[in-house]
Amino acid sequence: MIFMGQEKIFRFAIMGAGGIAEKFCDAVNRLENMEVIAVASKSLDRASRFAKKNNVAQAYDSYEEMLKDADPDGVYIATTPNYHFELTMLCLDYKKPVLCEKAMMVNGEEARLVFQRSKELGVFVMEGMWSRFLPHNKIAKQWLDEGKIGNVELAEINIGFQAGNDPKNRFNNPDLAGGAATDITVYCFELMTYFLDRPVKDIHTYMIQSETGVDKTEQISILYDNCIANMHASIAAKLNDEAVFYGTEGKIVVPLVHYGQECSLYRDREEPVHFTDQTENGFIYEIQEMVDCVKRGEVESKVTPHEMTIRCATMFDQLMGRKG
Amino acid sequence: MIFMGQEKIFRFAIMGAGGIAEKFCDAVNRLENMEVIAVASKSLDRASRFAKKNNVAQAYDSYEEMLKDADPDGVYIATTPNYHFELTMLCLDYKKPVLCEKAMMVNGEEARLVFQRSKELGVFVMEGMWSRFLPHNKIAKQWLDEGKIGNVELAEINIGFQAGNDPKNRFNNPDLAGGAATDITVYCFELMTYFLDRPVKDIHTYMIQSETGVDKTEQISILYDNCIANMHASIAAKLNDEAVFYGTEGKIVVPLVHYGQECSLYRDREEPVHFTDQTENGFIYEIQEMVDCVKRGEVESKVTPHEMTIRCATMFDQLMGRKG
Repeated sequence: MIFMGQEKIFRFAIMGAGGIAEKFCDAVNRLENMEVIAVASKSLDRASRFAKKNNVAQAYDSYEEMLKDADPDGVYIATTPNYHFELTMLCLDYKKPVLCEKAMMVNGEEARLVFQRSKELGVFVMEGMWSRFLPHNKIAKQWLDEGKIGNVELAEINIGFQAGNDPKNRFNNPDLAGGAATDITVYCFELMTYFLDRPVKDIHTYMIQSETGVDKTEQISILYDNCIANMHASIAAKLNDEAVFYGTEGKIVVPLVHYGQECSLYRDREEPVHFTDQTENGFIYEIQEMVDCVKRGEVESKVTPHEMTIRCATMFDQLMGRKG
Repeated sequence: MIFMGQEKIFRFAIMGAGGIAEKFCDAVNRLENMEVIAVASKSLDRASRFAKKNNVAQAYDSYEEMLKDADPDGVYIATTPNYHFELTMLCLDYKKPVLCEKAMMVNGEEARLVFQRSKELGVFVMEGMWSRFLPHNKIAKQWLDEGKIGNVELAEINIGFQAGNDPKNRFNNPDLAGGAATDITVYCFELMTYFLDRPVKDIHTYMIQSETGVDKTEQISILYDNCIANMHASIAAKLNDEAVFYGTEGKIVVPLVHYGQECSLYRDREEPVHFTDQTENGFIYEIQEMVDCVKRGEVESKVTPHEMTIRCATMFDQLMGRKG
């Protein structure tokens, strides 16, 4: 897509005007040949304030109006997960490539519908699982793939925080797709399946529901051929926010796995190896991936493929005791 | 049992002459009013060497002969687990109280038979789950029971070491009841059910088998009413050997949970509390408990009841995919 001897600017529109959308704007500003041209929210006042603060040209109180009028090259969906299906489908109707915040889909059926439609229309769709692109996770995965710790016998990812008891808090609100699954477990599962990219033999889940009816604490185990993976997530307790891989020849530790900058390799009878990254806004990698894929005419990213999102949403069904 | 104004000496016999039996002798020597009077092994040479080294009066190459001839007040069974059922039943035939090394029973059926027989005959039997008596674990349990960390959302116990690949090693030998379950998972399960002493809603297990046909790495999860417990055990990978309890108001960490001397309480917005114990041989507590129970005419310990051993052995059945 060379235009007048110059790389064409990729023009983003954003749906939703919260903190995550601000982080997205900041990341786009750090990248070449792209910009955010429009933002939409249900409230025009909110959208306008966001536009002014983040130097975005246009603000809308209608998502559809923005798609028609601003005609972006791609859309970033940054609303709460309960709107993701509807808004992704809307973008697909207008043949606009989508990067959608995680958890992209809250159940398997909607996930399958969205990606079926994406493939039918040939329009790019990608879940914003930004942590899969972070340098410390790429290094940890490289160590795993190179067999640095021998056979990985056991893998753990453990993410949790205390959301408190306020029923108005979005984490505690079932109507806004609150709960641990869409906020945290999505990281655990999509990072674990990134690190251990191999056939899954079985998945088991346990879930504890809060008084407000959201899933507050949960456990997901994956049985692989010669390895067991275990994930914990909670919005009721502070956990370690860490991935640990225990192998026959050592271990790999990834602190703050979903947003951190470090990982360490401990091999038996050797000095530990520590990796530290200096990235200031980790969203840049997923955004660059989306733009690159769209420019190449692809419908999905190899790093965060449709199948990943479908598997995760299907795991949510299992977690909630729903038929998939 | 006061005899001539003095506490009667409780006279132990030991079945098996390995390292664990030596640790037992050392512990008995640290306690009042008890002694080890005899040891039996399949090899008289081995038993005699043990007797000489540990200052034990009599050595036998027949377990039954020892029971008849030495007439002990109680027996400590310190063989590999594959002999535990047969030897416990033998002791019961001679109405001798039993303290049997963990894992006491390798399947649920044998466990149920043993404890049924113990109750029928009114003879004391107890699994040697010594870690339940260790001071650092008692303190950690007290903190949990007192609600120091609020509701325990998630609990983890994680024990593992690298047994290596030598098929002659007992850990890798299915004929000697090798594998992670009887050596390590028993600790995970019986400590978890000690810390979280409440009704179990469900138990799930995953197991990976080694090339020699033993269970090398496994995961056990317990679903409680408002809490999930997770255990990992491995003889293929070095794990953290730690218990961690994550609550709504903080966490409790117990390093080297099965044999350590420390635990720490981290409450939100408070200084951490650290406990350290100075016990030199942690076997003393379970031995004192056995002798006290026998002297009181009881058939089981309240700290390590028959039900605990039955539940654990039944969990082994689930782990191995056997019908319980």
